Amino acid sequence: MSEHITDFSRLAVHTQTNKPWSLAECLENYGTAGITAVSIWRNVIAPIGIGEAARLVKSSGLAVPALVRGGFFPAASESGRQAALDENRQIIDEAAALGAEMVVLVVGAVPGIPLADARQQVQDGIAGVLAHAESAHVRLAIEPLHPMYAGDKSCVTTMKQANDICEALQHPLLGVAVDVYHVWWDDQAQAEIARCGANDWLFGFHICDWRIPTRDLLTDRALMGDGCIDIAEIRGWVEAAGFDGYNEVEIFSEEQWASDQVDYLARIKHAYLTQS
Amino acid sequence: MSEHITDFSRLAVHTQTNKPWSLAECLENYGTAGITAVSIWRNVIAPIGIGEAARLVKSSGLAVPALVRGGFFPAASESGRQAALDENRQIIDEAAALGAEMVVLVVGAVPGIPLADARQQVQDGIAGVLAHAESAHVRLAIEPLHPMYAGDKSCVTTMKQANDICEALQHPLLGVAVDVYHVWWDDQAQAEIARCGANDWLFGFHICDWRIPTRDLLTDRALMGDGCIDIAEIRGWVEAAGFDGYNEVEIFSEEQWASDQVDYLARIKHAYLTQS
Repeated sequence: MSEHITDFSRLAVHTQTNKPWSLAECLENYGTAGITAVSIWRNVIAPIGIGEAARLVKSSGLAVPALVRGGFFPAASESGRQAALDENRQIIDEAAALGAEMVVLVVGAVPGIPLADARQQVQDGIAGVLAHAESAHVRLAIEPLHPMYAGDKSCVTTMKQANDICEALQHPLLGVAVDVYHVWWDDQAQAEIARCGANDWLFGFHICDWRIPTRDLLTDRALMGDGCIDIAEIRGWVEAAGFDGYNEVEIFSEEQWASDQVDYLARIKHAYLTQS
Repeated sequence: MSEHITDFSRLAVHTQTNKPWSLAECLENYGTAGITAVSIWRNVIAPIGIGEAARLVKSSGLAVPALVRGGFFPAASESGRQAALDENRQIIDEAAALGAEMVVLVVGAVPGIPLADARQQVQDGIAGVLAHAESAHVRLAIEPLHPMYAGDKSCVTTMKQANDICEALQHPLLGVAVDVYHVWWDDQAQAEIARCGANDWLFGFHICDWRIPTRDLLTDRALMGDGCIDIAEIRGWVEAAGFDGYNEVEIFSEEQWASDQVDYLARIKHAYLTQS
């Protein structure tokens, strides 16, 4: 079991958690709330452009653990796979512009491509952009997704599969982002998190909760404590693996997005201290 | 790869697939359609009682691979676990009355009980009803459920976990039901299906498809061919493991339930021959 969290020094919030807010609103409200780090989703960059986004972030003083999200490597055609490489190189450049530590990779899946073949395409795709990540000094973090996304979002559904790709490619800028929502059910999660630690490639840790019942596959995640995940236990595994980065709150929730966001941010802070 | 299916001799349909129909309507329409086997859900028994249900089934001449469903063993209290044992003994008796080969076990999960502890409770619960299954000559088939049900329906989310329980208990009446919907994403499914075969405990095989996008966690399964699962490939694994029982069509779909059920049954037969 991990120690209780006693302050907000390691708290980061994903912009998508407060989806109603623009990037500027996220930065202002997080800063006011004493939150020192933000992970940025590309949708909040799109309306203002990467130059303006980078300027806002820099003047806010907030740290940026991650830009979310690159990946989606598998494609039915060679040209499709090539387009994915180009897109990922652009995302890496955006991460560098924002001063983000890492790009989170949602690796992709395509109906009709067997999952094992898709994972090979993911490995080849990552191999194809590592030199670019190197020149931009940006880490790449494979995020295994819950198996309910295996059809169209991620052929990597377990920590083991993510670790196997990292092991095959062996690059100091390639690692794994652990999200409790995606891995809590997996009886191999603890062992594979330890494997991340042993290899020094545990780059990110995302928290939220699994609501019961879950009413939507995409947008019904719960605030920490409002679901069935033992978040502190998994945080203990991550910390035992040597992780000392940010605990990133990443919650997609129509219910919470419909609430007052300033109030919600206060509830996030409370849940972070008491339920994580 | 498996051989093409050329006839309906191994086709079974679950009553829940045609949820708008009563048991009598299922039996009549399946019989008319040349379908010789039906797996029966308890909800169609409830309105008429087990005696009348057994009489209807017997006079229909249809075989009954499975009664669905027993299980739900884990509970927070000893009295709750005892109640689950009693309930499962009653379900076994119902299966015997219907002449069903097996009871399918959806094993259960309870928020707040760690999954590993819940799996131990499942194993203990099954151990507690095996003597009853023996006296009733009814098989028990553990059905691993997709990890999206780990919160409240099944702490057994992989074939490996189901096999481990079978291995621990080692009883000729205890085995596994494989549902493509629940296992298709699992990179260990093929090996664990082979393990079932090697131990002679592969009791059931359920088919449907994974719709993209899946709009509901419970009731948006697809007709074979309308999703991304390579059903024939998994059927090949099952047959390579020596399985020669029924291919049971089990589809929960609000969309299909809203359609004309006689027409839907014809589409099921067509998809069975061409997409399974």
